[in-house]
Amino acid sequence: MTRKRKQTSHYNQGASLPVWRESLNQIVFGSESRAGRAFDIVLIVAILLSIGTVMLDSVEALHKHYASSLLLAEWFFTVLFTGEYLLRLVCVRRPWLYVRSFFGIIDLLSILPTYIGLLMPGVEYMLALRILRLLRIFRILKLSEYLQEAHILMDALANSFRKITVFLYVVLTLVVVFGALMYVVEGSASGFTSIPTSVYWAIVTITTVGYGDIAPKTPLGQMIASAIMIMGYGIIAVPTGIYSAELMKSRKQDKTDNQACPDCGAAGHDFDAAYCKHCGHPLDE
Amino acid sequence: MTRKRKQTSHYNQGASLPVWRESLNQIVFGSESRAGRAFDIVLIVAILLSIGTVMLDSVEALHKHYASSLLLAEWFFTVLFTGEYLLRLVCVRRPWLYVRSFFGIIDLLSILPTYIGLLMPGVEYMLALRILRLLRIFRILKLSEYLQEAHILMDALANSFRKITVFLYVVLTLVVVFGALMYVVEGSASGFTSIPTSVYWAIVTITTVGYGDIAPKTPLGQMIASAIMIMGYGIIAVPTGIYSAELMKSRKQDKTDNQACPDCGAAGHDFDAAYCKHCGHPLDE
Amino acid sequence: MTRKRKQTSHYNQGASLPVWRESLNQIVFGSESRAGRAFDIVLIVAILLSIGTVMLDSVEALHKHYASSLLLAEWFFTVLFTGEYLLRLVCVRRPWLYVRSFFGIIDLLSILPTYIGLLMPGVEYMLALRILRLLRIFRILKLSEYLQEAHILMDALANSFRKITVFLYVVLTLVVVFGALMYVVEGSASGFTSIPTSVYWAIVTITTVGYGDIAPKTPLGQMIASAIMIMGYGIIAVPTGIYSAELMKSRKQDKTDNQACPDCGAAGHDFDAAYCKHCGHPLDE
Amino acid sequence: MTRKRKQTSHYNQGASLPVWRESLNQIVFGSESRAGRAFDIVLIVAILLSIGTVMLDSVEALHKHYASSLLLAEWFFTVLFTGEYLLRLVCVRRPWLYVRSFFGIIDLLSILPTYIGLLMPGVEYMLALRILRLLRIFRILKLSEYLQEAHILMDALANSFRKITVFLYVVLTLVVVFGALMYVVEGSASGFTSIPTSVYWAIVTITTVGYGDIAPKTPLGQMIASAIMIMGYGIIAVPTGIYSAELMKSRKQDKTDNQACPDCGAAGHDFDAAYCKHCGHPLDE
Repeated sequence: MTRKRKQTSHYNQGASLPVWRESLNQIVFGSESRAGRAFDIVLIVAILLSIGTVMLDSVEALHKHYASSLLLAEWFFTVLFTGEYLLRLVCVRRPWLYVRSFFGIIDLLSILPTYIGLLMPGVEYMLALRILRLLRIFRILKLSEYLQEAHILMDALANSFRKITVFLYVVLTLVVVFGALMYVVEGSASGFTSIPTSVYWAIVTITTVGYGDIAPKTPLGQMIASAIMIMGYGIIAVPTGIYSAELMKSRKQDKTDNQACPDCGAAGHDFDAAYCKHCGHPLDE
Repeated sequence: MTRKRKQTSHYNQGASLPVWRESLNQIVFGSESRAGRAFDIVLIVAILLSIGTVMLDSVEALHKHYASSLLLAEWFFTVLFTGEYLLRLVCVRRPWLYVRSFFGIIDLLSILPTYIGLLMPGVEYMLALRILRLLRIFRILKLSEYLQEAHILMDALANSFRKITVFLYVVLTLVVVFGALMYVVEGSASGFTSIPTSVYWAIVTITTVGYGDIAPKTPLGQMIASAIMIMGYGIIAVPTGIYSAELMKSRKQDKTDNQACPDCGAAGHDFDAAYCKHCGHPLDE
Repeated sequence: MTRKRKQTSHYNQGASLPVWRESLNQIVFGSESRAGRAFDIVLIVAILLSIGTVMLDSVEALHKHYASSLLLAEWFFTVLFTGEYLLRLVCVRRPWLYVRSFFGIIDLLSILPTYIGLLMPGVEYMLALRILRLLRIFRILKLSEYLQEAHILMDALANSFRKITVFLYVVLTLVVVFGALMYVVEGSASGFTSIPTSVYWAIVTITTVGYGDIAPKTPLGQMIASAIMIMGYGIIAVPTGIYSAELMKSRKQDKTDNQACPDCGAAGHDFDAAYCKHCGHPLDE
Repeated sequence: MTRKRKQTSHYNQGASLPVWRESLNQIVFGSESRAGRAFDIVLIVAILLSIGTVMLDSVEALHKHYASSLLLAEWFFTVLFTGEYLLRLVCVRRPWLYVRSFFGIIDLLSILPTYIGLLMPGVEYMLALRILRLLRIFRILKLSEYLQEAHILMDALANSFRKITVFLYVVLTLVVVFGALMYVVEGSASGFTSIPTSVYWAIVTITTVGYGDIAPKTPLGQMIASAIMIMGYGIIAVPTGIYSAELMKSRKQDKTDNQACPDCGAAGHDFDAAYCKHCGHPLDE
């Protein structure tokens, strides 16, 4: 029933490794063994702490007072993650595939900025790239019991992809047309200085975010804005409806999974089915 | 199973054309042939680029520096779309019907503003009409595989039209009554200068947009505003509920409507059912 | 199938009237006859125009320039509605019940303010009461084909009343507790001048309205605010889920309505039922 | 059918008490007897009034003018709740368990701040703790007919806990990554002074709250912001879909789970079914 099986990435399939690399592999990439789980937990803590360091370092006041401590912490994590990266290279079955894989690139992006910052001072902003370390936690999530739930949510999203594309195209058309209209009606005086700015305003409005940095001043502009708001308020029902219907359908498929025709083996029968809908054979139940 | 058939608009049905116009017709209006698909793709790219030109031209800074390049680009697209319009006139089966059709008018509105701007300088704002070119992409979407999805969404909207009308009327009554109330309670000091302005504020609030350009200052006004917000937060459930229920119903009808067991008469079989799930009798289809 | 029958209010039931009052009654209160429908339409137009007059009159600039015309229009509608009120009193079956009914009070509130404004000058704000005329349109809606749809929506709301009460109580507790917390954390400097003001801010935030007139400034305050926002974003799912589930249930009841057991007469069977679930008798279908 | 049975907390189960303490227990903790219900109502009123006192006392203007009256009221409620606390200690079956229970702590927190404020003047902010008295109303709600509804809502929440955790983790990753991106793109000039502040802005935006205290100024920043908004607008569908599907499932299980036809084994009968809808055999129950 549960799909909780040992899952390995494509770069970790293939010929068996020497014993010591095999056990290292199970610690670094796996999460079944006690050592593997401990490795995962240490890694998550290190990632979160390093993210915290990056965030705090971006605060002017803290950067001034604790610059050296934060730099030290940053280098500690960089060395740690560099070691981990080398470890992964050593014990993975197909190192080259790993380096080019999504998580391989993320792992590299987690350590590169610090080294580059050493070579080229003055690229502070580029250091924000280190925030991508956060994505590394998904690797561990990938192996956890939450995977199934994520799969259900993703499947429903994937199934409703076309409908949501249609919906998004309609929304984009609406914001462009209404944005241009408001540019004509309101003009620069109210902040609608150009069509792109007006389209930005229309997006802020139709999604009900409503910053208020740009807002209609003329009666006609306020009437059009009201129409956009009520539209946005109403059509939020569309993606929700699409997604709810999809989730419920996927739940239905779940429900019927565990009945299989004893004659033809077909699955997916309704809960109240007495006969196989494919071959007409009576179902066990 | 799929409804993907050659679909032609009403102005393209009727007597057959001479061979060269017939093949032109299939390129310009159709999307089955390779040439037709290429024509569509070129057109989409041209539309998007021309929209980009219109948008960039409305930005003051860009308009100053690149006025001549943007004008050139604009005339390039106008001539292109004029040529396309004439092409359509030549090869369509019923030209007059086409001119008066929705897309015929949109096509004309895509090119007219530029020519009028030539005759009457100083109608910059009117040029924003050219943004309607965006709607022309729907013509191509109309022929694509996304049509079915759009149909499902539209049908569900059409079926819930009455319920949503009732809902909108209630919302409009609420905003007018609460708007008048806030006008009395808050007065001009907080920005509630007139009943229409107050109604505008009530719409901004009940749709949870919340610009903040007008906001209640008195305790009583803030209490009433809180009531409107919680109301708006709660009743957004209504259109979502209506639409979800409708989408789910349409999904169900899709699956089951057209099948009834010839033996026991039971309905509600799955789309892929070959045998009645209640009595095991083979289904007709 | 449709419930579209002649519906009369409680104050219009009872002993028959003399012929002329009976036909007047059918015009004024009914909407089946041609004259009755015409009366309704004239009334709706008059109500909407008079609402427009009230709204325009509240705009300072218009009030200055068109004061006399607007006053004239106002008196025209007041006299018209006074005449209509007297007409209703004359031809209704139980006048006293009508006067005390909901619509009787609304009808009176539609005309009283203008007369009172004549006796006591300087009660401009009180004139906003006239906006309640808008509610009179519901009387006509009550007789229309939209009634059924409104009934379905209202029934679903009534059925989910208890769940929504629980939800609202939880939301109110959250905003009070978080409001007090923010009052302590942020203090007067950021605009959190008192607990009621902070609770108002919490409502503005949890409903995702977000005016921005009050906003947290301290890091701790922003963290708490983030928690409230994500909470508000998440729990909007609750009323929508409640209402969707309720609407779908009521739809289900609709579906089964028209099957009745030929033996015991019980209704409400499932779509795929072959036997009456109450007495076991085979269903006709 | 209904689960409305006498419910007692764990600290009120055990050996029977002397008669006078037993009847006191039924008044103070129970709500079946007339005296018990009266006690509950008096308590709710006192709680609400005391909350009102705390709130009003936090308003500067009122605090100045009515300081002594508000202090008097506060002491009245504190003495009242102290008496109630002692009463509960006297008549509860296991006093020590009660003191350490959730409601025992809340009851203590309702009275302690006032006494502490007496000993240590100048801890005004700490007085806001008294707002937690509001939670005491849940004790009475716990015994009411709304309990069932709350249970359904809580069960659906608990069942969708994992899915919502996955959803929240994705949302948190999005706001951190987009926040860091906006910090790089916009910089301090637009108010994006640090990564934590930018993340706060991203939360304000993705939840569609949109205060507007921080807003992007550069074209690139506005484009990224538009992407976040549309994302936020779209993914609100996810928790709603999850919760709707869960609520509907729980409704379905209520109706059908515990019945299977003893003859043909078919499940999925209505709650009120006496005969199998597939074969007409009487159902057990």
